[in-house]
Amino acid sequence: MAVLAMDLGGTKLAVAVFSPTGILLSNEVVELDNRQGNAVGALITGMAQQAIAAQQATDMPVQAIGISVPGINHQKEGTVWAPNIPGWDAYPLLKEVKQVSGNIPVIIESDRACYVLGEQWQGNAHGCKDVIFLAVGTGIGAGILVNGKVLRGAHDIAGAIGWMALQQPFRSQYVDCGCFEYHASGEGIAKVVKALLAAEPSYNGVLRQQPVEQISARDVFAAYDKKDVLATTVIQSCITYWGMAVANLVSLFNPQKIIFGGGVFGPATALIPAIKAEALKWAQPISMQLVSVEATALNGSAGIYGAGFLALQESRPS
Amino acid sequence: MAVLAMDLGGTKLAVAVFSPTGILLSNEVVELDNRQGNAVGALITGMAQQAIAAQQATDMPVQAIGISVPGINHQKEGTVWAPNIPGWDAYPLLKEVKQVSGNIPVIIESDRACYVLGEQWQGNAHGCKDVIFLAVGTGIGAGILVNGKVLRGAHDIAGAIGWMALQQPFRSQYVDCGCFEYHASGEGIAKVVKALLAAEPSYNGVLRQQPVEQISARDVFAAYDKKDVLATTVIQSCITYWGMAVANLVSLFNPQKIIFGGGVFGPATALIPAIKAEALKWAQPISMQLVSVEATALNGSAGIYGAGFLALQESRPS
Repeated sequence: MAVLAMDLGGTKLAVAVFSPTGILLSNEVVELDNRQGNAVGALITGMAQQAIAAQQATDMPVQAIGISVPGINHQKEGTVWAPNIPGWDAYPLLKEVKQVSGNIPVIIESDRACYVLGEQWQGNAHGCKDVIFLAVGTGIGAGILVNGKVLRGAHDIAGAIGWMALQQPFRSQYVDCGCFEYHASGEGIAKVVKALLAAEPSYNGVLRQQPVEQISARDVFAAYDKKDVLATTVIQSCITYWGMAVANLVSLFNPQKIIFGGGVFGPATALIPAIKAEALKWAQPISMQLVSVEATALNGSAGIYGAGFLALQESRPS
Repeated sequence: MAVLAMDLGGTKLAVAVFSPTGILLSNEVVELDNRQGNAVGALITGMAQQAIAAQQATDMPVQAIGISVPGINHQKEGTVWAPNIPGWDAYPLLKEVKQVSGNIPVIIESDRACYVLGEQWQGNAHGCKDVIFLAVGTGIGAGILVNGKVLRGAHDIAGAIGWMALQQPFRSQYVDCGCFEYHASGEGIAKVVKALLAAEPSYNGVLRQQPVEQISARDVFAAYDKKDVLATTVIQSCITYWGMAVANLVSLFNPQKIIFGGGVFGPATALIPAIKAEALKWAQPISMQLVSVEATALNGSAGIYGAGFLALQESRPS
């Protein structure tokens, strides 16, 4: 037997097949090419059908399907809310995939839950029952395991850590994304730099040498590596926010590990010792001594591993 | 049958007997009278023996004992850390109580876990599986239920929300108690007022009319009710902190309810609408719309109810 894992992102879909022992047998990535709504659903069901047929031809047929989605999976309703996929406000993905999967069970989870499950299965959280994956990319989200189970909350919206309040007073820029995400996400870093460039006409460093609307977090990290003064201000501020967020997770959850991932970690991985030093100032001191703060071991693949792990669990009913 | 519930506080011990249907049959409170270490243990075992014997003489013998402790119960070790009871760094309470309880099972939990369990059993969280009790007294702690289970963390230290980082920059006053607790606990309110009285010699309101070292949070609320300017500044700041804390719990946990209790709620109960309005600015918007923010229904008794509930669960093995 084998399991099928699918990881839907905002711009692409990854499709992988895992052996029962967790070996990655195949891995394919297709671009969404601006597909929206039903067309994204059709891409997923088409790729699923194709993979099921391909495995059927081998001695390892697909026993279960796990799907990671970039948003919230409402477990009871079987619908997905994915803010970056137009038309996916309450998309009936489970029903659609079941129409092509026949008797093969299907399980869908939010990407942040899949990240932490992937890390637990084949990454840096192996054997951890209380662990948090802090995904810092365009936005910020947290996949949280409590005593080995995904923390979903009452309506599957738990882990929305981008909304964490970390600095007074409240500012209008927080309305659409939350305080933490405004100051310390990939998109936030670019926004903060653009605001500073407008506010500081005397600055004439490397970040002034490209069209302002094209500046990304990656450019800011490159400027930080060159000791640019504006980039240094912004990244130092991010270290404070990331450290406070780690501290708050440590004080509330007393986890064994906090694992940073997402596109920003990435370049921010080198900052983890500074982030931990910041967290040490704020957090419950005993919990802080006992936690390990690390970078993902799976780079961009935590989601597909998590989806594979969910499928494997589903294929072995307890 | 009946169950025995004990709620140890920093200055007193409550002892109650509940019927199997949850009716409070008896309730007694004894002062600790400055007892320390083993003497507190002896008080608990003595009261337990006495209650067991008294129930034995009726047709409702004690079937299980639940104990709420003011600190952390280390489940694996069977030891209690209680910062306000001298000599209780790793106190072997479970072993001691088992010596007098014979075959009667004993379960010990942190007070904050008992608060939320009590509220779930006979208070405002009835039927809630995802609910948080925010206890604001001398200090601040959170009892958190995730899918019906107490959130303990990897080392039983979860819920240490007094350490939540909510305002930059870090200040030396946060070292011993955490940012949130410094600004918005009962002890914190008194400390902040004393610092303001020292910093504002021109203030001549009601809080200047008593010896500064005797000022308590209760005095600050009384002055706030009289529209005193200094008390208003401090309580408004507390509303901001409490609102940010609610917001962060909502964004992270997506709970059904957040319940305020502890000595400060109490007088701060009237502020819950203002706290909710503050939280609304910061939190994940959908989760915030779906959460209910309320005051405890059990006043100072949530701990003893929680201990009773634990004992009742223990007396009915699943």
